[in-house]
Amino acid sequence: MEGVRLLADSGKGRDFLDAVRPGRFLFSLVMSYTETCRIPGITIAGANPDAMQFTPPADAEYLHYGHCKVIEQIPMTPDGKPTPGLLTRAALESAGIPHLAINAGSKIVPQLPFVETGLQPGRDITSEDAMTGDQLTRAVDYGRMLGMRLASLADCLVIGESIPAGTTTALAVLQALGFEARVSSSIPENPIDLKNKTAAAALERLGSKKPRDVVAAVGDPMIPLVAGMLCAASKVSRVMLAGGTQMAAVLAFASSMGFCEENAAVVTTSYVADDPTANFAELMRSVADVPAAAVDPGLHKSKHAGLRAFAEGFAKEGVGAGGSIMSYMLHTGGSPEKFLNAAETEYQRLTLQ
Amino acid sequence: MEGVRLLADSGKGRDFLDAVRPGRFLFSLVMSYTETCRIPGITIAGANPDAMQFTPPADAEYLHYGHCKVIEQIPMTPDGKPTPGLLTRAALESAGIPHLAINAGSKIVPQLPFVETGLQPGRDITSEDAMTGDQLTRAVDYGRMLGMRLASLADCLVIGESIPAGTTTALAVLQALGFEARVSSSIPENPIDLKNKTAAAALERLGSKKPRDVVAAVGDPMIPLVAGMLCAASKVSRVMLAGGTQMAAVLAFASSMGFCEENAAVVTTSYVADDPTANFAELMRSVADVPAAAVDPGLHKSKHAGLRAFAEGFAKEGVGAGGSIMSYMLHTGGSPEKFLNAAETEYQRLTLQ
Repeated sequence: MEGVRLLADSGKGRDFLDAVRPGRFLFSLVMSYTETCRIPGITIAGANPDAMQFTPPADAEYLHYGHCKVIEQIPMTPDGKPTPGLLTRAALESAGIPHLAINAGSKIVPQLPFVETGLQPGRDITSEDAMTGDQLTRAVDYGRMLGMRLASLADCLVIGESIPAGTTTALAVLQALGFEARVSSSIPENPIDLKNKTAAAALERLGSKKPRDVVAAVGDPMIPLVAGMLCAASKVSRVMLAGGTQMAAVLAFASSMGFCEENAAVVTTSYVADDPTANFAELMRSVADVPAAAVDPGLHKSKHAGLRAFAEGFAKEGVGAGGSIMSYMLHTGGSPEKFLNAAETEYQRLTLQ
Repeated sequence: MEGVRLLADSGKGRDFLDAVRPGRFLFSLVMSYTETCRIPGITIAGANPDAMQFTPPADAEYLHYGHCKVIEQIPMTPDGKPTPGLLTRAALESAGIPHLAINAGSKIVPQLPFVETGLQPGRDITSEDAMTGDQLTRAVDYGRMLGMRLASLADCLVIGESIPAGTTTALAVLQALGFEARVSSSIPENPIDLKNKTAAAALERLGSKKPRDVVAAVGDPMIPLVAGMLCAASKVSRVMLAGGTQMAAVLAFASSMGFCEENAAVVTTSYVADDPTANFAELMRSVADVPAAAVDPGLHKSKHAGLRAFAEGFAKEGVGAGGSIMSYMLHTGGSPEKFLNAAETEYQRLTLQ
């Protein structure tokens, strides 16, 4: 397939893509939060530290309405680069793929109907446990219930996330579980030292290396909820995890609970897969026996600097962009050129507002 | 079809049932609340006045888990007759029909993932407006968004409700809109005088006869949310309103906004359709040009007094029982006898707990 690269388990990857191609897609966006995002310099998923908490609901609103309600403009970096949700919206709208938002501990709720789980925001992993054991159990249980319900409504359940600083909590979880992880970042100059220092501080508090205890201590609410969704949904339908290194943490935790590997795949953008500061492909091969693919959105060819920025390392992935573009290509047969067209139309619509 | 009676527009009714038979069903339960239920004697949808507020989330939990979390036992009348949700659960589980819960102003939320709308509980219509204009607008708008999303996931969206005293608010809305309405009741001795007095007291406060103003003043949050769902969903898919006289109020309001009548139908139990204190069939013919059908669950033949009670006038309908049984019959080809079997198995499971 043009613009698509299979990274791990390429035979299985082809089988997965062929199997989901003719079916019904359903995209779900998991909104979450970790206080870890308040550590200065760790993320730019928001115009400033106070804006971060609005990013997940604003991403959900933008996918739904084409504009935001909880904030004035769509989420962007401090210097005005748009949320990767732009790519997600262009893909889902062009392909007519239905989507819904799930709240897994976002501090702010979106102004639209969304699925509520009652989960609390994750706490700063450098100073305390991300969540209690009860909250972890709820996240996994509710994730399972949701996964089962949603999988019965689609042939391919696509799961994306929006959680500022989520790559840092993912890094801590992966390191604690013994994986050589280098995670990607929304920032072109990946603040690797700061992330590693943050993860190291979190790991110092760790008493147990059991996956459950690790996720509760140094993870975030998105990880166990999506892991629960994957475990239940992969039993009855196919599941595409739409994300980068954060989904490696989900897979690592889900593996400890058991899920149906034949029915799962991870899809990200080529910007994450090619990020030399991260090790996406290698990491995917080590955490679970599921296919991984990278899709090239072709944004380096865009006439708009705001879109070329994604290809130059800004944002790279998030809001399920990679998986959404893959779903668009599978569902409509559209080429990367056609997608670029859709993304440019959406970008122009936004900048003319 | 055995056990099914077409009440209004029988030609269209047959077409509707034939059209949805081979498709995918999705059941949604709208949980709501009106303080009107605290008027002594107006409803028995709960063991006592304080228990009423737990009935909608408990119904949702029972459908999902087979038991409740917010209360110990499943919702029942003061003398121990079970919620009509028993019929809904037996039907949906036997047919493998997916379902989800939507919160439209319930005072208590269920312990499971549900769709949140942020609507407030309805106020007592004898003393104040049920909701503000803003809340009404939100209910219709969010209903539309939900209807569109859910309709894209199913060929037939079935909508049921759980709101104690909902027939009284429906009566007030229907009367205010000029319909000769006699509504059914969860009580064998329908407290008609009390309901009429309540509606009359509510109507006295009415300044405007515009449908929007009427629903905001003397309705409940379920009515505009479901009307919004119907308007949007009927444009892209088929919608089965699963309820009795309350759905007449929904249809009357939806008619004022415009919806696709060819894609809508109302289905209730024969216990509501045959209720001599109500005028379901006549009312349906007058409020909108949509087919109506009654399904006979055959519970008079049950060996269990608790199930025969439904045929003797207790509860009669609610939690989308009639529409769920119809969906079961269409989806599985099951006869009324087979449904009775499923209901008895569920009843036995509950009473052995």
